[in-house]
Amino acid sequence: MQDDNCIFCKIANGEIPSVTLYEDADFRVIFDLNPATRGHALILPKEHYEDLTVLPEELQSKVLPLAARIGRAMKEGLGAKGFNVVQNNGEAAGQTVHHFHLHIIPRYGNPDEMVLWKPGTSTPEELNKVCAEIGARLK
Amino acid sequence: MQDDNCIFCKIANGEIPSVTLYEDADFRVIFDLNPATRGHALILPKEHYEDLTVLPEELQSKVLPLAARIGRAMKEGLGAKGFNVVQNNGEAAGQTVHHFHLHIIPRYGNPDEMVLWKPGTSTPEELNKVCAEIGARLK
Repeated sequence: MQDDNCIFCKIANGEIPSVTLYEDADFRVIFDLNPATRGHALILPKEHYEDLTVLPEELQSKVLPLAARIGRAMKEGLGAKGFNVVQNNGEAAGQTVHHFHLHIIPRYGNPDEMVLWKPGTSTPEELNKVCAEIGARLK
Repeated sequence: MQDDNCIFCKIANGEIPSVTLYEDADFRVIFDLNPATRGHALILPKEHYEDLTVLPEELQSKVLPLAARIGRAMKEGLGAKGFNVVQNNGEAAGQTVHHFHLHIIPRYGNPDEMVLWKPGTSTPEELNKVCAEIGARLK
């Protein structure tokens, strides 16, 4: 099912042309137009699902194997020294297009090319509390 | 197969105790001791694989379905408004422990809690070039 108002639906299904790295029955892999680094790619499902929480398990299971293939090819083809896999769920998490997408970001060893987060602190008591709170809802 | 010098092997297999959110035959889910936000969790395979590029496809396929379950539980149990999935491959990508792990980071809507990257720019010519370079190595 596609969403007529979703730009990633149109791109994933070829209604809007894109530079396509890979395509199969389920997914299209394109490039981020505002890349974090050179080669920054996006895996898009062809059907419309808002985020990971509603992507069907059959598709969820296919995304990381595809990301692994792309990451390996980035290391070989672009000379990347590593890569980040990032997938944002919800506006609060920085998701700007509400169609599931997974970022694959090649890294070249420049220390300022990307900062992921500032490490915080924790206590065993706090970790136990947070574990109980999440665990109570884990299905 | 475990690596005797790997701390995540010892944690994943229970040789070093941890606050465990979830465990099955393949994975243990623990909490990051230096969390980006409250509830920052890690999915660890019990066997030792350095990163996504060498994780067997059978395990690759199980990681995102598990992350989706945990992300949903974080929203319900912690009141998170969203969550990020992040997985780093190689020191150049910020990987500090060389045992595959996937971060699940709840987000609460505080604008300064995490900055993922600074959007860059691209041209169609550059995207076509990068596509050819990666595509030549994509297996």
